[in-house]
Amino acid sequence: MTGTLFSQINPPQRLLMGPGPSNTYPRVLRAMAADMLGQFDPEMTSYMNETMALYRDVFMTKNQWTLLINGTARAAIEAALVSLCEPGNKILIINNGRFGLLLSEISERIGAEIVTLDYPWGEVASLEEIEQAIIKHEPHIFACVHGDTSTTTAQPLDGVGEMCRKYNVYSYVDATATLGAMPVATDQWGIDIISAGLQKSMGGPPGCGLITISDRAADFIFSRAHVELGLQDGTQTQSQRSRIKSNYFDLAMIMNYWSEKRLNHHTEATSMLYAAREAACILLEEGLANCFERHRLATTAISEGARAMGLTLFGHDATRMYNVTGIYIPNHIDGEQIRAEMRNRFEIEIGSAFGPLKGKIWRIGTMGHNARPHKVFHTLMAFETVLRRAGLDITPGKAIDAAFAVYEGK
Amino acid sequence: MTGTLFSQINPPQRLLMGPGPSNTYPRVLRAMAADMLGQFDPEMTSYMNETMALYRDVFMTKNQWTLLINGTARAAIEAALVSLCEPGNKILIINNGRFGLLLSEISERIGAEIVTLDYPWGEVASLEEIEQAIIKHEPHIFACVHGDTSTTTAQPLDGVGEMCRKYNVYSYVDATATLGAMPVATDQWGIDIISAGLQKSMGGPPGCGLITISDRAADFIFSRAHVELGLQDGTQTQSQRSRIKSNYFDLAMIMNYWSEKRLNHHTEATSMLYAAREAACILLEEGLANCFERHRLATTAISEGARAMGLTLFGHDATRMYNVTGIYIPNHIDGEQIRAEMRNRFEIEIGSAFGPLKGKIWRIGTMGHNARPHKVFHTLMAFETVLRRAGLDITPGKAIDAAFAVYEGK
Repeated sequence: MTGTLFSQINPPQRLLMGPGPSNTYPRVLRAMAADMLGQFDPEMTSYMNETMALYRDVFMTKNQWTLLINGTARAAIEAALVSLCEPGNKILIINNGRFGLLLSEISERIGAEIVTLDYPWGEVASLEEIEQAIIKHEPHIFACVHGDTSTTTAQPLDGVGEMCRKYNVYSYVDATATLGAMPVATDQWGIDIISAGLQKSMGGPPGCGLITISDRAADFIFSRAHVELGLQDGTQTQSQRSRIKSNYFDLAMIMNYWSEKRLNHHTEATSMLYAAREAACILLEEGLANCFERHRLATTAISEGARAMGLTLFGHDATRMYNVTGIYIPNHIDGEQIRAEMRNRFEIEIGSAFGPLKGKIWRIGTMGHNARPHKVFHTLMAFETVLRRAGLDITPGKAIDAAFAVYEGK
Repeated sequence: MTGTLFSQINPPQRLLMGPGPSNTYPRVLRAMAADMLGQFDPEMTSYMNETMALYRDVFMTKNQWTLLINGTARAAIEAALVSLCEPGNKILIINNGRFGLLLSEISERIGAEIVTLDYPWGEVASLEEIEQAIIKHEPHIFACVHGDTSTTTAQPLDGVGEMCRKYNVYSYVDATATLGAMPVATDQWGIDIISAGLQKSMGGPPGCGLITISDRAADFIFSRAHVELGLQDGTQTQSQRSRIKSNYFDLAMIMNYWSEKRLNHHTEATSMLYAAREAACILLEEGLANCFERHRLATTAISEGARAMGLTLFGHDATRMYNVTGIYIPNHIDGEQIRAEMRNRFEIEIGSAFGPLKGKIWRIGTMGHNARPHKVFHTLMAFETVLRRAGLDITPGKAIDAAFAVYEGK
């Protein structure tokens, strides 16, 4: 390794058609090449305010508290849950994929009492089932994943937030994999907190959490704020609620940092702020509806191409995500061997799977910069070639013709 | 704001001579412009391994577990403390500046029992005083800040880690502000965990935590690892220690992710990994000793320049950090007005101060890419001009001549 230790960063030009990270928009990479600013310089705080405004549109919300979390998408999940959930609070979680399990994992560490609504991977909960569980368990928080890449399935959320409010339950949704690919309708759904990341359909690098917080949830979180050590002078009234168990993920402090008060917390990750701002600009310049349609078409083309090769899709068309497709690995085919051939012969990465789907499906992503016809076409032609050479009986050209038919509206 | 919402990122070319963030090495900015890789692609894991190897040299250690935390420097502090400290454990903290206070703030949330060794800002603890406090309080952890930018003062650490081991105490040091500027001698000191960030003298952007962990501390942290929800099959023995209270900051999981096991945790922040790797290359190509001397000279030149103008320095020469200088604001001078003039007339940022030093001192940083003669010279000439025009009786040219004398070894 010593020989390469000081060599230039020079990754291969690989097409990342897995479940993320995806290739980054070149404009985002260029934005990150801008130099630093002092963290309270007016230009820096303007970029922060602009980023808040842009992400309100991305999250389809009027929430004042729409901002970045300096960490990966997982960091934003933990910030939401540790700030909303006091130890001993009950949390109701939909358990139907790997990232639903992560919500339980994180909540368990916070000291929450966890109740799960369990489904096989690939299935979703109905509004009625969620409501019945809320009536039965009376949780403090309802939490679920919008689109779980592990199952390629999206949980319908129409009416869910509104229903939660009826029972005075806070709602949290992890939209890491769906933001930018399909509607994440924060205000229409009435969800209190939604978090996401940049590295899927937002077309940015991993390492930047995105979050939007309703006033109602913000009020609750601010009610847990305590006067800091070293700032206590004996005259302040301390909150009676339990203090948020993390300093770094204390959303009350993070909101104060992003507010006009600019109370010091961390030092904002400037390059990531530039990246997040640019990614939002690209999405909004294209238009949300156009971008969602571009994603929907790409996934449909992959799906129809796979079916034309005689392959079977995992999950249901009605709840399929717009940016990742699960395809069963046929009998007698070595799934990992196919992935290796895709990478070694064509510099295209496709995904394997986890948990109960491990070794059973491939996952092909069409995210952000990669949700485009020519990348779909190249991927399908390469996939067909690799499968055919592995012994599958496929008539050459069927997959690509099916994909063309999708784009030509036939 | 709407008019600028979609404008290009275009920060002013400002010289950041405050306590950080500093201007970034252009090579680091360019490294971040490289495209993404799949997180388990061999090129990606090679970059991770190379980054570990490079930071072992930066941290002057042989510690296997030398890696990145995906968050700001503050995230790395919390990862160290939440992983080392079980609720109810006693932690002894040196309280002599703003970032010492932060260690208490973070530890309090974890549920630690906190004991502090208190000093006025600008003073440090002696090895004997630390030892006496350890004998008296028998803590589980000793923690302190190496260089605290709030006081411009560095805590001497020779013998501290070794002494802690004698009493079976884990030691933690926050070297955010000193790494890359002066020796952070992990193995020589015998400190168990040292963390830092990129945005000070490493010459990178904020948003990337750096950490090195001794085998002894790693063994303890691994002893707190629990088999995850969804992976429990009833046959595994669960740890009897309390589970680490954060998923995101669970160093056992993060070490497993960076190990050859590559157990999935977060998705590594690829652009930040590129930045961190490049920053380490730049430092090691220059050589640690050369880089430290460049920093020492820059701070000395700022100090002597300030003294030549009749200004008084905060703190003691013997414990002054190599990359930030505290200068008392003279009577009848408005410190904030001077900072505004420096920024508005010369595009140079210098720092204000916090807590007991608020309104009393300026802080001038000379960090990473900015610890160079010409930047020191420009800063001192501008500072002299601004102070003179604000009514201070200064003979023009004295400050710059004193700085030249430092560099010319007179």
